[in-house]
Amino acid sequence: MTATIHSIGAPGSPSLDPLLALVAPDMNAVNAVILKRMQSKVALIPELAGHLIAGGGKRMRPMLTLASAALLDYPGTRHHRLAAAVEFIHTATLLHDDVVDLSEMRRGKRTANLIWGNPASVLVGDFLFSRAFELMVEDGSLKVLKILSHASAVIAEGEVDQLTAQRQVGTSEEHYLHIIGAKTAALFAAACRIAPVVAEAGETAEDALECYGRNLGIAFQLVDDAIDYASDEATMGKDRGDDFREGKMTLPVILAFARGSAAERAFWKDAMQGTRIGDDDLAYATTLIHSTGALGDTMERARHYGRRAIDALAPFPAGRARSAMVEAVEFAVARAY
Amino acid sequence: MTATIHSIGAPGSPSLDPLLALVAPDMNAVNAVILKRMQSKVALIPELAGHLIAGGGKRMRPMLTLASAALLDYPGTRHHRLAAAVEFIHTATLLHDDVVDLSEMRRGKRTANLIWGNPASVLVGDFLFSRAFELMVEDGSLKVLKILSHASAVIAEGEVDQLTAQRQVGTSEEHYLHIIGAKTAALFAAACRIAPVVAEAGETAEDALECYGRNLGIAFQLVDDAIDYASDEATMGKDRGDDFREGKMTLPVILAFARGSAAERAFWKDAMQGTRIGDDDLAYATTLIHSTGALGDTMERARHYGRRAIDALAPFPAGRARSAMVEAVEFAVARAY
Repeated sequence: MTATIHSIGAPGSPSLDPLLALVAPDMNAVNAVILKRMQSKVALIPELAGHLIAGGGKRMRPMLTLASAALLDYPGTRHHRLAAAVEFIHTATLLHDDVVDLSEMRRGKRTANLIWGNPASVLVGDFLFSRAFELMVEDGSLKVLKILSHASAVIAEGEVDQLTAQRQVGTSEEHYLHIIGAKTAALFAAACRIAPVVAEAGETAEDALECYGRNLGIAFQLVDDAIDYASDEATMGKDRGDDFREGKMTLPVILAFARGSAAERAFWKDAMQGTRIGDDDLAYATTLIHSTGALGDTMERARHYGRRAIDALAPFPAGRARSAMVEAVEFAVARAY
Repeated sequence: MTATIHSIGAPGSPSLDPLLALVAPDMNAVNAVILKRMQSKVALIPELAGHLIAGGGKRMRPMLTLASAALLDYPGTRHHRLAAAVEFIHTATLLHDDVVDLSEMRRGKRTANLIWGNPASVLVGDFLFSRAFELMVEDGSLKVLKILSHASAVIAEGEVDQLTAQRQVGTSEEHYLHIIGAKTAALFAAACRIAPVVAEAGETAEDALECYGRNLGIAFQLVDDAIDYASDEATMGKDRGDDFREGKMTLPVILAFARGSAAERAFWKDAMQGTRIGDDDLAYATTLIHSTGALGDTMERARHYGRRAIDALAPFPAGRARSAMVEAVEFAVARAY
C-alpha cells in the first residue's frame, strides 16, 4: 500500500483559510476575552499562560464553537466568552500534558515546564481551568456547564487511560479509539455542541454538531499520531518521534505490531518499553510503519472519521459556513505526509 | 516570650469531637457520594484517589459545610453532594501540591506521586476537579458554582504566588497572609458560604459564615506552619521540617528573620535558598524560631484569627451547632506544640 502524498498549501488542496475567514471577526472578540481573563496580580500566571496562548496555537477548538454558531446564524455574542472558556480548558490540558510527557517542545517553542518548571505549569493549568469555569458561570447556562464539566472529566479519564496503556504493546485498536475519543474528541465535540445550545437551535442540531466535532477530533488525532512517524518535512514544527520515545501506543504502532513478524513484534516491545529508542530505532520503526501499510491505513481511518464528520453537517443549509467546516475536515485529513 | 504548652487530648482541652458528632449522620451521606463519584472504568483513578480520600483525612472542609447547614437548621440534603464537591476540590489540590512540593509523606502514608508517579497524580487531580464541577452542576445552583469556581481560581493563584515567594527571604507578613488567605482560607470560606446559599438563609448569614470560614482557615494554616517547627511529639504524623527544606517562607521564618541578627539573617538566607538544610540546620532554625518569639507570636496571630472566626458566629442562635463550631476553632489553635 502506498501513501498518498499531499503537498501542503499546493493550489487546489484543502485549506483552513475559509474557516479562518469565517470566524475572524468573532475570533478577535474571543482573543480579547482570553487576554483579559488570563490576567492576574500574580505575574507568573499571565507570563506563563501567555507563552502558550500567544504562542501560535491554531485556536482550533474555539474556532469550532464560532463556526458552529455561524452555521446556525446565531446573532449574539455569548459564544465569545464560552469559546474562550474552551480554549482555557484546552490550554490547561496542554500545560498538564507537557508535565506528564516531560515534553520539551510545543508549537515550535520550548515548553512552559522546561522554562518555568513543572510546579508552575501544574498550578497555572489549574488556574486556567478554574477561570474557564468562572467564564461559564458568568454566561449562566447550566446546560453549557454540564457539557463542559462532563467533557473535562472525560478528558482527564482519557489521559489517565492513555497513561495506563503507555508501553503496553498489546493495546488494541478499540482501546486506542476509546482513549482518543476521550482525550481529544470530547473537547472538539463539546466545543461544537455548546453553539447550538446558546443559539437555542434544538437537540437535533446539538447532536449533529457534537457528531461533527467528535469525528473531526478523532480524525485530527489519528493524523497527529501519523505525523509522528511521517517524513521530516511534513511535521510542521512538531517534535517528530516524541510518541515513539515516550512509548505511546498510537494506531500506527498498533497496526504495525499486529501485522509484524515475530522479530518485528519483539522490536516493538523493546521500543515501547524504552530500551530501543535511538535514532536508528526510530528510522527502523518508521520503515516498518510504512512497509506494513500502518501509516496509510491510519490515514485511511482518519479519512473515514472525516467523512462521518462531513456527513454530520448534511442537515444544515449549504452556504459559506458549511463549506468552510467541510473544507476544515478535508484539510485536517490532508495535513500529513 | 514563652509558648503555652497544650497537651492534646488532655481532659478539658478543646476537642473536635462535638463537631464530628454534630455532622456524623450527614458525613456518612457525604462519604457515600464521595465513594460513588470517584469511580471510573479507568481503574487507576479510584485506586489513586482512594489512597488519599480513604487515607485518614479529617474531611475538615466538607465538615464545615455540614456544620454551617446544621447551624441554620437546614432540613434538606443538597449539601451532601456539594460537600463532596468541596472535598474533591481539596483532594485535587492536595494531589497537585504533592507534585509541586515533591512530597513523600501525607497523612502518615507515602504520597500518591511517590507510588504512582507525578503524571498520574496530576491527571487524577484534574479528574477529581472536573468531577467536583459535575456534582455542582447536578445540584444546579449558579450561585454555588460561582462561589466555588471563584474559590478554585483564587486557590490556584495563591499556590502560584507561594511558588513565586519560595526561597525569597524578604517575603513580608502581609504577602504571606495574602498567600494563605488564597491557598487555604478561600476554600474554608467557600465551604461555609455555600451552606446558607442552599438553606436560602440570606446574604447576612452568607457573609457571617464566609467570615467564620476565612478566619478559621487562616488560623488553621498558621498553626500548620508553626507545627513544622514544633517539637517532634506534637507533629501528629506530619513530616516535620518539610517547609524548611522546601524553602517555604512561612510566618515563623518571616518573624525570626525580621527579628534576627545579621548573622542569623545570613543563616536564614542560606537555609531558604537550600544550601543549609541538614538536620543540624533544622535544629538551629527551630532554636531561633523559639528564641525570637516567632513561634509564640505565630500562635498568637492564629488565636487572633480564631477569635475573629468565633465572633463571626455571634449573630447565630446559641446551641449545639454553634458550640461545636466554636470549639472546633479552639481546637484548631490549640493543636500545636
